[in-house]
Amino acid sequence: MKPRLYGYWRSSASWRVRWGFELKQVDYEYAPVNILKKENRERAHLARNPAGALPVLEVEPGHYLAESLAILEWLDETYPKQGLRLYSGTSFERARIRQLCEIINSGTGPLQTPHAQGQHSADAKERQKWAQYWIERGLRIFDQVSASRRGLYSVGDKPTAADLCLIPQIYNAKRFGVDVQTLAPGLAKIFDRALATPECHRAAPEQQVDAVK
Amino acid sequence: MKPRLYGYWRSSASWRVRWGFELKQVDYEYAPVNILKKENRERAHLARNPAGALPVLEVEPGHYLAESLAILEWLDETYPKQGLRLYSGTSFERARIRQLCEIINSGTGPLQTPHAQGQHSADAKERQKWAQYWIERGLRIFDQVSASRRGLYSVGDKPTAADLCLIPQIYNAKRFGVDVQTLAPGLAKIFDRALATPECHRAAPEQQVDAVK
Repeated sequence: MKPRLYGYWRSSASWRVRWGFELKQVDYEYAPVNILKKENRERAHLARNPAGALPVLEVEPGHYLAESLAILEWLDETYPKQGLRLYSGTSFERARIRQLCEIINSGTGPLQTPHAQGQHSADAKERQKWAQYWIERGLRIFDQVSASRRGLYSVGDKPTAADLCLIPQIYNAKRFGVDVQTLAPGLAKIFDRALATPECHRAAPEQQVDAVK
Repeated sequence: MKPRLYGYWRSSASWRVRWGFELKQVDYEYAPVNILKKENRERAHLARNPAGALPVLEVEPGHYLAESLAILEWLDETYPKQGLRLYSGTSFERARIRQLCEIINSGTGPLQTPHAQGQHSADAKERQKWAQYWIERGLRIFDQVSASRRGLYSVGDKPTAADLCLIPQIYNAKRFGVDVQTLAPGLAKIFDRALATPECHRAAPEQQVDAVK
């Protein structure tokens, strides 16, 4: 079977992995799970991932992997010679890519999920303020850490796993009313550049079969 | 130079990396940074890591790596034949280890930091409730995801990166009054087993030169 990716059009972690498949030129099947209908909390999905989160990759029938960065590492290890290296360069450079990934994956994303927002406050304005705070902080740190090695992308001139984390986070930032252009103009440029490529565009939320327009 | 690890005795991410060095049998120099005195917010430390977080590894003079999982991957890549494999097995098994790591590193840790607690509420009781909520949720998910492959440790019979994340998280859970024994008895056993080993013991908070007793 082709790897089957359970995802949701607007989930930023799902976008990371869809774009990863595009860059690796690996064929996959996309299986939407509707978060708004709470399909991710149903028994069928909890059997794939007890966390109830997306994305989940079914590598072989009944063999499930969750956590987007674990999936990206699996992709890059399983297809080392195909498409782009998502973690490229020396051990140190690869580690720096992983550091940038975690600034988003661990330092930003988990704090701005609907779940974290909801735990923080029942008030919509408070929730938005909370999300903005963490997104602005995360992008500011990503901007500073990536500054010295930035090229056309976050690390050098080709997309890496760091960009797979960055671009969907900027998309989210815009949804939450963060002025990325003012906060981190260098990152805003990478966003525009990436979205102009066919791989990132095909993986973007609005291009998915489950997108609501 | 030996790799120099900037850390703090009670930082769980610092413990992960100290234990990683012990398991890899790689010599390192420990350089404490006092979070209570806000040394991590001083210019010298922000130059190492703009996030102001710990741990940070100085691989060579002026070459800094932050984010504990990026450091652990670097360690395992740089010393593949030395000590234990932190990410062992097939690509799929390695990915499952990374999935477990992220349940703690991204799904639990960032939500229970003093920073996140402080943003959530100024009230001490509210802060503790918040931390407990995320810790209990994270350990419950870790317990479920690891159940099928658990041996003496989270994945099989030797420590892996997954345990490097789990054990310090359980230590934190106890500090926050979470009853781990009742919540996840299988994980509580791994905690006791790990702490009885010299490697984990040497890396534990109370054994560090900067520990306050």
